[in-house]
Amino acid sequence: MSKFRNLGLIVNYTLLNNARFRLEDYVTGVRSGDRMMLAKAITLAESTLPEDQSLSAEVIDKILPDTGDSIRIGITGIPGVGKSTFIESLGTHIINDGNKVAILTIDPSSRLTKGSILGDKTRMDELSKNTNAFIRPTATGNTLGGVGSKTREAMLLCEAAGYNVIIIETVGVGQSEVTVKNMVDFFLLLMLAGAGDELQGIKKGIMEMADAVVITKADGDNVKHATEAQAEYQQAIHLLSSKKSGWTPPVLTTSAINKIGIEEIWKMILAYKSKTSASGFFGDNRYTQNINWFHEYFQQLLITDPMRFSAFKKKLNDLDQNVADQKISPHQAARQLLDAYHRAIQNNK
Amino acid sequence: MSKFRNLGLIVNYTLLNNARFRLEDYVTGVRSGDRMMLAKAITLAESTLPEDQSLSAEVIDKILPDTGDSIRIGITGIPGVGKSTFIESLGTHIINDGNKVAILTIDPSSRLTKGSILGDKTRMDELSKNTNAFIRPTATGNTLGGVGSKTREAMLLCEAAGYNVIIIETVGVGQSEVTVKNMVDFFLLLMLAGAGDELQGIKKGIMEMADAVVITKADGDNVKHATEAQAEYQQAIHLLSSKKSGWTPPVLTTSAINKIGIEEIWKMILAYKSKTSASGFFGDNRYTQNINWFHEYFQQLLITDPMRFSAFKKKLNDLDQNVADQKISPHQAARQLLDAYHRAIQNNK
Repeated sequence: MSKFRNLGLIVNYTLLNNARFRLEDYVTGVRSGDRMMLAKAITLAESTLPEDQSLSAEVIDKILPDTGDSIRIGITGIPGVGKSTFIESLGTHIINDGNKVAILTIDPSSRLTKGSILGDKTRMDELSKNTNAFIRPTATGNTLGGVGSKTREAMLLCEAAGYNVIIIETVGVGQSEVTVKNMVDFFLLLMLAGAGDELQGIKKGIMEMADAVVITKADGDNVKHATEAQAEYQQAIHLLSSKKSGWTPPVLTTSAINKIGIEEIWKMILAYKSKTSASGFFGDNRYTQNINWFHEYFQQLLITDPMRFSAFKKKLNDLDQNVADQKISPHQAARQLLDAYHRAIQNNK
Repeated sequence: MSKFRNLGLIVNYTLLNNARFRLEDYVTGVRSGDRMMLAKAITLAESTLPEDQSLSAEVIDKILPDTGDSIRIGITGIPGVGKSTFIESLGTHIINDGNKVAILTIDPSSRLTKGSILGDKTRMDELSKNTNAFIRPTATGNTLGGVGSKTREAMLLCEAAGYNVIIIETVGVGQSEVTVKNMVDFFLLLMLAGAGDELQGIKKGIMEMADAVVITKADGDNVKHATEAQAEYQQAIHLLSSKKSGWTPPVLTTSAINKIGIEEIWKMILAYKSKTSASGFFGDNRYTQNINWFHEYFQQLLITDPMRFSAFKKKLNDLDQNVADQKISPHQAARQLLDAYHRAIQNNK
C-alpha cells in the first residue's frame, strides 16, 4: 500500500475480522436485496486493502447494469439545522409513496473522534426500523476524494439492491458539498431562519449549487421568521447565475417534526426529475458525473501505482531521509522520485 | 495542462496580465524584503501555468536556506468567532514586541463567490497599514491539496522576506484545518462561549488538533459565560488523548477589541516554542512536515505527468466517450488508462 499521507489509509478492522465472500455471493446477495450482503458489499467498497479494492471493483462492474433507475438527492445544512429530523420525515413520506429509500451520510467532522457516526442511526429512529429504508454512515477518513468514490459505490450498490431513492446527507460546510453535488441529481440546501448573517456567509458558495433551499423548523413562533427568510433567500437565489439545468431553485419552508411541507418537497423533486429528464439535462449530468468518476478513479489508481515497484520504494525512503536532513529541497526530491517511477515502469521492477 | 477536474485549474488572470520576472529578480526582491516582489512571487507560486510552476519551484528552492527561522501559527474558528479582530490585536501586539508578521488567510467557502476574499484586508484595518505586517488571502479553488502547497510556499516566501511570525488563518470547518495543522508549529482554536452544543459538536476533531483554545469576546456581559466555557473546554481537552509534543493545551479567554488577554496568548506561544524546541519536538515536527510536503508535491507532479503524452491524451478522449456512452465501466476505463500511461512512458510519446 501507498505510504503517502494524503491517501488516508483507513484500515477497516471490521472487515479484517470478517471472511471475504466470493464475487458471486456479493453480486447475487445485493441483487436480491439482501440487506446484510448489501452492508457487507459497502464495507468491501470502503476497504483500503488492495485485494478488497479489486474485488469490490469487480462487484461494482457486475451490478452496474442494475443501477441508475433512481433519483439521487444530496441534502446539506449546518449542524443544528435539523437534517436528521427532516430526512426522517421526508424519507418516511417517500417510502409511503411506494419507494425504497437508502440514506448515506457523510460527516467530515468525525475524522478524528468518529463521535457523530455512532449517533447517525439512532437519530433517525422511525426510518431505522423501516424495512424499506437502508441507513449507512460513511467515515470520511483523511480524504474527501476517497469518500466521494466510496459513497458513489455505496450508492450504486443500494440501487442494485432495489433502492430507487438515494439520499446523501452531509454537513453543510467545506469540501464535502462539492463531492456530494458531483454525484447527485438534485442538491437540497437546508437553512435556518435567522441564524445570523455571519453564519449564512459561508453558505453563499453552497447556495449556488443548490437546486432548492428549504427553511427548516417553520413551526410555532418561528413561522414568521421562516416566511421572511423564504422571501430573502428567494431574492438571493434570484441574483445568482442561472442554472445549466434550466431549473429555477425554489425556496420552501417545512416543519419536519409536524410533517408540514414534506409532501410539497417530494413533489418538487419529482417535478425536477421529470422536467430535466425531458430536457435531457438529467441524463447529460449523469454522463458527466460518470466521466468524473472515471477520472477520479484513475487518479486513485495512479497515486497508488508507484508503490508496486521496489526500486521506487527504495528511492522514496532515501529521499525521505534527505528531505528530513534538508540535503535536498522537497521540489527536487519530488522530481527525482518521478524519474525513479518512470525508470521503474521502463525496467518493470 | 491536465484536464482532471480534481486538479482545480485556477487560471490566475492577474498574472496573465503581468510580465513574468527573471528568477534572480524574484529571489533578490524577496530576500531584500521588497513587498511588491514578495506579492508577485506569491502570485507566481499560486499560478497553475506550467512555466510559472517550474519557475516558482526554482524561486522556492533558492530562498529555502533563508526560511525556517520563524514561528508558524495556525488560527481557526467558525465564522463569527472574531478571527479578524483577534488577529488584528494579536498581530499588532507581536509587531510591537519587535517582530514582522505575515498573515495568510485560507477561505474554503469563497470557492464560488470569492466574496469573503475581497473583505480580508479591510477587516484588519490597523494591521493593513502597518509596514511590519504583510496580509495575503489565498483563493482555495477546487483543491485543498493545492492550497496546502501554495500556502506553504507563500509562507516560505514571507519568511525569506524577513517575516519571522507567520499567521495562517482559516475558517474552522472541514478539511482546511488539517491542511493548516500540517504546515504550522502551533495551532490555535478560537471558540465562542455559549454558541451551543450543536455548533461545538463539529469542533471535536479540530479540538484534538489544537495546541491552545482561546475563548473570544470575553467582554461585558459575556465575561461570565467565557469563564464558564473556559472551565468546560479545559475539562474537554483534558479528556482528549495526550499530545506527542508533551504540551498540555491551555484554554484562555480574550477580549481582542479591548486588547485583554492578548499578551498572555503571545507569551504562551513563545513558551510553546521554547519548550518544544528544547525537547526536540519543534524540529522533528518540521522535518515531518517537510517530508509530507515532498510527498504532496510528488503527487501533484504525478497527477499532471500523464498529460505530457499525446498517446495518453488520445486514449483519455476515447475512454471519456466510451464511459459517457456506458460502453465501459469507469473502473475498467481507469485501468486501461493506467496501462496507456505506462505504454506512453515506455515509448516516450
